[in-house]
Amino acid sequence: MKLSSKNLSIRLETIYDAIIVGGGMGGLSAAIYLARYGLKCLIIEKGKGRSLWMQDLRNYLGLPPDTPGRDILKNGTQQAIEWGADHLRGYVEDVVDEGETLGVKVKVGKTESIYPVFRSNYLIAASGIIDHLPHLENMQNVYDYAGYTLHVCMICDGFDMWDQKAVLIAGSESQINAAFVLNWFTPYISVLTHGLCSVSPEMKYKLADHGYPLYEAPIARFLGENHQMSGIELVDGTLVQATTGLINMGSSYHNHYLKGIAGLEWDGENLITNDMAQTSHSRIFAIGDLKKGLNQVSIAVADGTLAATQIWRNIRRSSPARKWLANIHMAS
Amino acid sequence: MKLSSKNLSIRLETIYDAIIVGGGMGGLSAAIYLARYGLKCLIIEKGKGRSLWMQDLRNYLGLPPDTPGRDILKNGTQQAIEWGADHLRGYVEDVVDEGETLGVKVKVGKTESIYPVFRSNYLIAASGIIDHLPHLENMQNVYDYAGYTLHVCMICDGFDMWDQKAVLIAGSESQINAAFVLNWFTPYISVLTHGLCSVSPEMKYKLADHGYPLYEAPIARFLGENHQMSGIELVDGTLVQATTGLINMGSSYHNHYLKGIAGLEWDGENLITNDMAQTSHSRIFAIGDLKKGLNQVSIAVADGTLAATQIWRNIRRSSPARKWLANIHMAS
Repeated sequence: MKLSSKNLSIRLETIYDAIIVGGGMGGLSAAIYLARYGLKCLIIEKGKGRSLWMQDLRNYLGLPPDTPGRDILKNGTQQAIEWGADHLRGYVEDVVDEGETLGVKVKVGKTESIYPVFRSNYLIAASGIIDHLPHLENMQNVYDYAGYTLHVCMICDGFDMWDQKAVLIAGSESQINAAFVLNWFTPYISVLTHGLCSVSPEMKYKLADHGYPLYEAPIARFLGENHQMSGIELVDGTLVQATTGLINMGSSYHNHYLKGIAGLEWDGENLITNDMAQTSHSRIFAIGDLKKGLNQVSIAVADGTLAATQIWRNIRRSSPARKWLANIHMAS
Repeated sequence: MKLSSKNLSIRLETIYDAIIVGGGMGGLSAAIYLARYGLKCLIIEKGKGRSLWMQDLRNYLGLPPDTPGRDILKNGTQQAIEWGADHLRGYVEDVVDEGETLGVKVKVGKTESIYPVFRSNYLIAASGIIDHLPHLENMQNVYDYAGYTLHVCMICDGFDMWDQKAVLIAGSESQINAAFVLNWFTPYISVLTHGLCSVSPEMKYKLADHGYPLYEAPIARFLGENHQMSGIELVDGTLVQATTGLINMGSSYHNHYLKGIAGLEWDGENLITNDMAQTSHSRIFAIGDLKKGLNQVSIAVADGTLAATQIWRNIRRSSPARKWLANIHMAS
């Protein structure tokens, strides 16, 4: 059922089989599986996740390639709830390992917030990442293009940039290296640092050798109309022609609530998991962009399948067998 | 493009980047990714795969849970072709490791067959498995229920059997053990061997202890209407009441064409793969039900993503960088 500040008190004594932090692609897939295993689960979704920004989902088998992320999120949430999952809009502030259970403290409501604690035997960390975008005074100008012709994922959208004039917007020298992968899709690459980093002579030489101009002045604004980029104007007045672009400025990981848990194995900001998406903590699973691996919808959805299935196996194997008592009585 | 016996000769000199054996869920996902990486690929689909039998796909995020497998196959095939994949209806007879390339011999056409050989740098084995069904004189009677209320996958459909009277149809004593997993979903289990195996005293005792009756006579026919089972009639005249059932009689693996390849590591009939779905042969990937792991659509789709991405990485890293020559000339 849908929970909110008005009705959530009825679940404060519940021990969920699993709490899922994040109602994106991975979290919803996990919830659908858990619910269909007959397990009690709660999805806690803060909103505005990465997949909500996807204007069309090109690579996910089974859906028309112009399906926006928000449609999948909406339908998947409804499906999970119909099969018995609970869903709460809220922000997970902290998780405490209580031994047999995990305590999940949630901020609910932006104003007059309340801070309920929910409990579960297992936790699925599915809260993902969010891409850094260039910060302009008028952010609407960025949002007008981001997810349309200005991309954040080369695997998802490189094909749609084929042989177009493209900008690569990078915030550090190492991020500039994406130019030498992006050139699989198009060689017409202009590199923009938005004034965020200095570029070594070696990198400048390498870019020049490939014929990729480098612009180090900050971006003033994106040009174009109807979400179709035509170029970028820099603060020094330079106009860079481009009909598409890739933003490669890193991302923020929504993993703060796990930082106090002992025994979790990290690789940078990613959690290390086994082949069932289980972390080094036996009660905590990590799926989708939070774990090491490809950041793709198909991968997150499969991770949800794996995590839910392993949790079901664990719970099933430690539960007493259900017998057909009438038949036993008849036989005895 | 769609290939057939009429036009396939135009591709006999092509070296594909990858040939995908099997146009099911995993193979189509791989094809969509490969095509969108700008790679040349050929899907070879024999037809009548496992996912074609799925009457509704309950667990795959993003689609209404009554979507039949055939809709996904149809749309996915069309999508892959639109993005540049080739697609051929045919049966892969053999694969020969030629060193730099793999030669894939295909039987095309059921009558007046021809046997073209296609070549590729990589092979994705995505030909899956097919479940064994109880063999009755009137197979249509089995097909009337299989995939509707008579299931072959507990993870997919256990939820829809919840607390119903169910039959478990097993062809060997070890397959009977599925009763002690199926009882998570329902304890009202009757076990049928269809006369295919003898059952040890230990197993008989265990079944009796759980209250699960055992019927060892062969099945005469499934009863019910409109794909809704009401029971099963055995050849000895016994009527077993059941509104649902699970067939657990093993499956056939479509992997014969790989049996001649040296260096492949097997676990029974499953191929062992790494975390990018690559087998122990560097040019051969195995995805979906053919590899070790869960037999789920979401997993096969993710496997397709992984295999295609690793093939792209391999090819990209061994290809010369695309430079922006106009810019280099301008600078010199």
